[in-house]
Amino acid sequence: MEYRTEKDTMGTVQVPADKYWGAQTERSRNNFKIGPPASMPLEIVYGFAYLKKAAAYANCDLGVLPEEKRDLIGRVCDEILEGKHDDQFPLVIWQTGSGTQSNMNVNEVIANRAHELAGHTIGEGEKTLQPNDDVNKSQSSNDTFPTGMHIAVYKKLVDVTLPGVRALRDTLQAKSEAFMDVVKIGRTHLMDATPLTLGQEFSGYVAQLNFGIRALENTLDHLSELALGGTAVGTGLNTPKGYDVKVAGYIAEFTGLPFKTAGNKFEALAAHDALVETHGALKQLAVSLNKIANDIRMMASGPRSGIGEIIIPANEPGSSIMPGKVNPTQCEALTMVCAQVMGNDVAVTVGGTQGHYELNVFKPVMAANVLQSARLIGDACRSFEAHCASGIEPNRDTIEKLLNNSLMLVTALNTKIGYYKAAEIANAAHKNGTTLKEEAVRLGYVTEAEYDQWVRPEDMVGSLDK
Amino acid sequence: MEYRTEKDTMGTVQVPADKYWGAQTERSRNNFKIGPPASMPLEIVYGFAYLKKAAAYANCDLGVLPEEKRDLIGRVCDEILEGKHDDQFPLVIWQTGSGTQSNMNVNEVIANRAHELAGHTIGEGEKTLQPNDDVNKSQSSNDTFPTGMHIAVYKKLVDVTLPGVRALRDTLQAKSEAFMDVVKIGRTHLMDATPLTLGQEFSGYVAQLNFGIRALENTLDHLSELALGGTAVGTGLNTPKGYDVKVAGYIAEFTGLPFKTAGNKFEALAAHDALVETHGALKQLAVSLNKIANDIRMMASGPRSGIGEIIIPANEPGSSIMPGKVNPTQCEALTMVCAQVMGNDVAVTVGGTQGHYELNVFKPVMAANVLQSARLIGDACRSFEAHCASGIEPNRDTIEKLLNNSLMLVTALNTKIGYYKAAEIANAAHKNGTTLKEEAVRLGYVTEAEYDQWVRPEDMVGSLDK
Amino acid sequence: MEYRTEKDTMGTVQVPADKYWGAQTERSRNNFKIGPPASMPLEIVYGFAYLKKAAAYANCDLGVLPEEKRDLIGRVCDEILEGKHDDQFPLVIWQTGSGTQSNMNVNEVIANRAHELAGHTIGEGEKTLQPNDDVNKSQSSNDTFPTGMHIAVYKKLVDVTLPGVRALRDTLQAKSEAFMDVVKIGRTHLMDATPLTLGQEFSGYVAQLNFGIRALENTLDHLSELALGGTAVGTGLNTPKGYDVKVAGYIAEFTGLPFKTAGNKFEALAAHDALVETHGALKQLAVSLNKIANDIRMMASGPRSGIGEIIIPANEPGSSIMPGKVNPTQCEALTMVCAQVMGNDVAVTVGGTQGHYELNVFKPVMAANVLQSARLIGDACRSFEAHCASGIEPNRDTIEKLLNNSLMLVTALNTKIGYYKAAEIANAAHKNGTTLKEEAVRLGYVTEAEYDQWVRPEDMVGSLDK
Amino acid sequence: MEYRTEKDTMGTVQVPADKYWGAQTERSRNNFKIGPPASMPLEIVYGFAYLKKAAAYANCDLGVLPEEKRDLIGRVCDEILEGKHDDQFPLVIWQTGSGTQSNMNVNEVIANRAHELAGHTIGEGEKTLQPNDDVNKSQSSNDTFPTGMHIAVYKKLVDVTLPGVRALRDTLQAKSEAFMDVVKIGRTHLMDATPLTLGQEFSGYVAQLNFGIRALENTLDHLSELALGGTAVGTGLNTPKGYDVKVAGYIAEFTGLPFKTAGNKFEALAAHDALVETHGALKQLAVSLNKIANDIRMMASGPRSGIGEIIIPANEPGSSIMPGKVNPTQCEALTMVCAQVMGNDVAVTVGGTQGHYELNVFKPVMAANVLQSARLIGDACRSFEAHCASGIEPNRDTIEKLLNNSLMLVTALNTKIGYYKAAEIANAAHKNGTTLKEEAVRLGYVTEAEYDQWVRPEDMVGSLDK
Repeated sequence: MEYRTEKDTMGTVQVPADKYWGAQTERSRNNFKIGPPASMPLEIVYGFAYLKKAAAYANCDLGVLPEEKRDLIGRVCDEILEGKHDDQFPLVIWQTGSGTQSNMNVNEVIANRAHELAGHTIGEGEKTLQPNDDVNKSQSSNDTFPTGMHIAVYKKLVDVTLPGVRALRDTLQAKSEAFMDVVKIGRTHLMDATPLTLGQEFSGYVAQLNFGIRALENTLDHLSELALGGTAVGTGLNTPKGYDVKVAGYIAEFTGLPFKTAGNKFEALAAHDALVETHGALKQLAVSLNKIANDIRMMASGPRSGIGEIIIPANEPGSSIMPGKVNPTQCEALTMVCAQVMGNDVAVTVGGTQGHYELNVFKPVMAANVLQSARLIGDACRSFEAHCASGIEPNRDTIEKLLNNSLMLVTALNTKIGYYKAAEIANAAHKNGTTLKEEAVRLGYVTEAEYDQWVRPEDMVGSLDK
Repeated sequence: MEYRTEKDTMGTVQVPADKYWGAQTERSRNNFKIGPPASMPLEIVYGFAYLKKAAAYANCDLGVLPEEKRDLIGRVCDEILEGKHDDQFPLVIWQTGSGTQSNMNVNEVIANRAHELAGHTIGEGEKTLQPNDDVNKSQSSNDTFPTGMHIAVYKKLVDVTLPGVRALRDTLQAKSEAFMDVVKIGRTHLMDATPLTLGQEFSGYVAQLNFGIRALENTLDHLSELALGGTAVGTGLNTPKGYDVKVAGYIAEFTGLPFKTAGNKFEALAAHDALVETHGALKQLAVSLNKIANDIRMMASGPRSGIGEIIIPANEPGSSIMPGKVNPTQCEALTMVCAQVMGNDVAVTVGGTQGHYELNVFKPVMAANVLQSARLIGDACRSFEAHCASGIEPNRDTIEKLLNNSLMLVTALNTKIGYYKAAEIANAAHKNGTTLKEEAVRLGYVTEAEYDQWVRPEDMVGSLDK
Repeated sequence: MEYRTEKDTMGTVQVPADKYWGAQTERSRNNFKIGPPASMPLEIVYGFAYLKKAAAYANCDLGVLPEEKRDLIGRVCDEILEGKHDDQFPLVIWQTGSGTQSNMNVNEVIANRAHELAGHTIGEGEKTLQPNDDVNKSQSSNDTFPTGMHIAVYKKLVDVTLPGVRALRDTLQAKSEAFMDVVKIGRTHLMDATPLTLGQEFSGYVAQLNFGIRALENTLDHLSELALGGTAVGTGLNTPKGYDVKVAGYIAEFTGLPFKTAGNKFEALAAHDALVETHGALKQLAVSLNKIANDIRMMASGPRSGIGEIIIPANEPGSSIMPGKVNPTQCEALTMVCAQVMGNDVAVTVGGTQGHYELNVFKPVMAANVLQSARLIGDACRSFEAHCASGIEPNRDTIEKLLNNSLMLVTALNTKIGYYKAAEIANAAHKNGTTLKEEAVRLGYVTEAEYDQWVRPEDMVGSLDK
Repeated sequence: MEYRTEKDTMGTVQVPADKYWGAQTERSRNNFKIGPPASMPLEIVYGFAYLKKAAAYANCDLGVLPEEKRDLIGRVCDEILEGKHDDQFPLVIWQTGSGTQSNMNVNEVIANRAHELAGHTIGEGEKTLQPNDDVNKSQSSNDTFPTGMHIAVYKKLVDVTLPGVRALRDTLQAKSEAFMDVVKIGRTHLMDATPLTLGQEFSGYVAQLNFGIRALENTLDHLSELALGGTAVGTGLNTPKGYDVKVAGYIAEFTGLPFKTAGNKFEALAAHDALVETHGALKQLAVSLNKIANDIRMMASGPRSGIGEIIIPANEPGSSIMPGKVNPTQCEALTMVCAQVMGNDVAVTVGGTQGHYELNVFKPVMAANVLQSARLIGDACRSFEAHCASGIEPNRDTIEKLLNNSLMLVTALNTKIGYYKAAEIANAAHKNGTTLKEEAVRLGYVTEAEYDQWVRPEDMVGSLDK
């Protein structure tokens, strides 16, 4: 491989000749061989591209950067956002906890690519842009990395997570309406209980997701606050007056999202409670989705020796040894995602607790976990919606058989003959293997006609709508 | 010990003669000897007292319970809320996951105490009130326990947690204002950085708590939704028309809190995402408080060989072997609370994931953990405020000495001579053990006069307010 | 209330006249009103009683404490261990993180009670024993508290946890043997699979618990190492030569457990990885128990519209509204315990990470969580064994019916006709609602005789024992 | 792109013509678009390669597979292990929870590649090997995937994790010995305490890692048990007699590691407590490493306004805005890894709890998290060792200055004048800003000569070695 010489304040470093990055990126590559390369999420790099361009524009407006430099920076940032330089960001999550090295990676790539765009050859002549003095002007890693994280996470939530969850919610809502007349046995403690409709059951899932969506949306405001302008420790040292508001405005314009400058820059650097808050809502969604997926696979269990109340799509052969087997694989993928999200929540929490003084140095691990959870939940909801939820159908024969077997229909008699006599009927039927009606009449508590009038599953499901 | 005979639908049980509880409570006492007795939080019992009274009133209004019974139930509930029967609730968290046994404990105590109030002797004659048919009328454990949890948690949040956090926030706000002119060294990565004021540092803590308070308040609406009226599976079986709205209204009236009937009763029984959501916000507060307490103990470290920038109150001898030692004990209590809350979050999360069909049967463990976290955070904030935060004072001599030592003041020169030359100055001073000024002048990058004009810590802290 | 005056190095304090504790305990009571009072586990107090007595004996042997003082200390420690002074330890978990205040609580109670035993009146005359110079001789909170924790946890594990888990293991083992011939349908992905016996299924539970017991036993050696003798920072300052080994020997003698002095005292004060390690094994047991309890409640579900393959004891009425309902309440208590233990694991982990320099100051929260988990697992296993596992019986009719329905018996044909043709048979039977045999013959892949010879559930379960 | 037609029991599927995979892999690719593609760890694919070859050999030995097929399978497996087919495994973690689709991916790649090796063209003619009947012979996904996980994890532990931790341990041990005479101030509660040597401090770190290594080694035995031979539900259906022992023997031979057949196949399929157990030990190591890294960055803090007792290597510029700044970046990478491992532990735990009946369907998420943690800990220890620990040097001037300042040297007087008088001296010196000696003499408790003889830091550190 060919190399060129790059330098930073510590001296010179040999860098692969075909790459735009410079000395500090190369040092980090060599010093942090932890896990697979290039694990720093590209979403964060793109977040940086937005903010570097915005900073250049704000700096130019405020008279501290010439237009030519602004435009060069802007052009490279646009290229990055078009995905043209994805292979120029080789660093890992497990670097310095401020993400300084990824900030410098971006600064170096912009500076070297701009040198090319300006008609020069990388490594030759004075750099057209200085990575620190120009590209990083009015910035510090300490305010750019959190800004990049917030941009990346916010975009992921509105582009992937929320649409995914909403799509699933909508499908479950449609199923709830379609199944609103399918009376079935209820189950509490996994045991037979009084009836409800399959549509009512699904309406609970819809309500869970609606609460989760609202909880996630509640976190967006905190996330919309950007640290940029705080520079090294939150005081805004080396920024021109008015810069923080202006730069946030440009980011809002470039992304089309309602970003604003953070009300308190010290908090924005030293704590990442916004990520903790957002991930808390993602975890809540994981809790909801786990419940929903579990219910669906239990109700679909069988085909002959399980519950079998619903039928889910058969998407693939389920077993390498058992011919003809079909499994609730989308439920499994989704619940595995939920387990991951629950774990990620602890990683984010632990990272969040350990800010020291003016800086939290768990930024990359926190951002990476939030981004992973946000994507996994969005993707898994989409997958589950498309390949499972949308195809769910009731198995009406089984539903009816299981409903009519139930001893818990006796509950309808409570208000007629009291809980104790009703219990006596149920216990007798259970013990004798008989029906409720037989025992109710045999014990003399009701007549056949009364029983038939009072114990009607379809009358037991609509009390709240009376 | 003397016993009397009580019975339920399974038969007779011997119960201590001096207790109001009945057969089902006694069965649970014997069947669940797990952990210390009476671990079910009293707050939940009180939540039940509110809802049992409310149910009696709603039932009476709707014509299914006579006034005499309503009044008897109401009188016992009032006695419970006055703390007169705290020793009548011996059950543990680790019982049935629906809390049925604690619901029956309350039903039995009310029924037997009402029998007394009606002029009878417990265990003699027909019960004046039937535990199931009267006290539990229009109810199920499945809707009462979640209602009791929501009442208990909501009250704890507004009575203990939020006031505690706000008190600490207010004191930190006052300190932030008082210290706004105390210029000190900043630290990032635990290393010397550019200056800020002690008041700015504290303003970050205030911002953290403000975000945390808002996040917690955001969860109250979900928590205000009550399951009551859903009965066994959410359909409201065996409730009179209009009962759910009316009973929530009475609970709101009796507690003075904005409770309302749940929009979807199926969700309210089968999922407890409201508790997951609330605890997520408590965990966020724990994350913030951990950061704050850590900072304070690091800044207070010493007294002679640590950082020593602030002085915290000396409340007690700190060591049984080291004479004269004083420790940041309130920080330690608070951070231990934070560790507990982070753990509790996982317990609540795990419980939340495992609802099955129409019921989540992790109610007691979820409620107990949320209540513990809510109380611990509130109490610990109060304690930390009273015995630590309110007494914090800056150690101005040390602050000034550490500030002026710092090599990072060189950052002010970036915009004058560029990052690279500034780095050269700092590196030379570090290597030679000299001052920045000496090296800056020696290297010929600035004059003494320029240095004195440009490198002024007090000018480096206010950029955002320009 | 009457008070007497006690003093420490900071001055005088008013203490309730009827209590043995002194100034430092009272200061802590007043300064740490966090959560309910007296939450510091009594087990730790008892651990202190063992070690205080052992220290007195070692100090006496080594010539630094007179026999009279040794004997007085020993007598009070014995009284504490007999439970006579349980109300003398009012402090909370949420105090200083070294547990200094609880160490002083013990020192003060011993000193004042010894004064009485020596014939004096508390608060009058020179104290017979000085809390710091005599009772705490050759000790620091920093080595006593970890020693007390290790004693408390080790004892809890061998007295409660391990016997509880072993009792459940033994019962499940007996059930496994009793059910070894009960052929039933297997289920994977909750879907019908090839058969196994109920005894085989239970043998998996036994194997899980055996691995868990071994994992827990593996942690005992680390836990047997005692910090005592390290004093303030691990160097053993102010201890006589040979003290650490001798004092551990006395603790081993008094407790009857194989305690020994820690190989590295610095680790023993600054890190509590032994507790992290032990709790890791408790968490593993929670994982196993959760799986077992879940299986059992799913197999017992019904009674008429669930799986219903086993019958578990009906211990109490299961519902306050549904007459005759019986629920798997022991499974619920056990799985709630598992959720708590998973949460506690995070609290212990977080506490464990945050030792600073020579001391970890999350001792009380770590110890309290480990003790809670250890007790809950032991108690819950006992309860589950006594009230559920020991009464499990197969529901042979249902088992047989579900077994013979299964389409997965077709797997036996793989080695005869290949996976693809076998799948064709299963799919046809599923689609047509027919039996495997009908389709197998109809498709011409096997004769009736072949089918009957090859597809025999009872031949499909014993392959590993051939 | 060109496609060819592949089929499975559900029908035909179009597959990219240049890939070896078949219908089921392609179905999974299309049905599970969750997260980035090909996230299933290659280590698991390699684990499959070992076991598929071993199965072929065992099957051949036992007469159920001809030698030619055995050899074809073996050749493809060898190619996979040489990394020649890394791009043939496009599936994700978030698929079916049994990993069936990855098992089929391997089966299909082997079958198609073998067809080529046998001189044919993929997609033409009868397949030389059938994926299910030949490559998967005597196997099920349910026993192969857990076997593949155990192989992958065990190898990662012995190849990466343990060597990495041991390398760091060895370097810390060498540092401990080198620094054994460097007397410094101790710190407890972050406050000045009695002295110890820097070498003693480091010896605590060594002890932590030794305990962690032992804890991890303790888990290897459980991990060495292989599920293979249990097939679909643990009964070993469709395997020849003696197969399970023989196949484990081949795996042990091929990997050079002490694998053996699982004692209980039902546990080995339905529970993955072995992974829970192993990850528990990884989490313990994370706890230890977090403590060590924290201590080192606190001791290295400064350079002028922190603690500054040690000097760590300056590997890269630390700030994009603050010139000359150097940060403890390796500590940050390591502690971020620790946060991730703590999170992963919860993901593994949650996955472990949710086995149902005969199968745990959280296999891929559990395996992926254990593999990530194992690699991150190994890599991060290596990185921290090479770029930080190996270069740590004491800053002797600072150490001596901070030591001699300390008021806690007074502790040495406890045994001479008692704790109370010693406290009086320390408090006076603290209050008056004087030295201990001045106050000790002024108060008349000791003479100058006594003070100089009794209060010698170097005599206060070696008590345990006397």
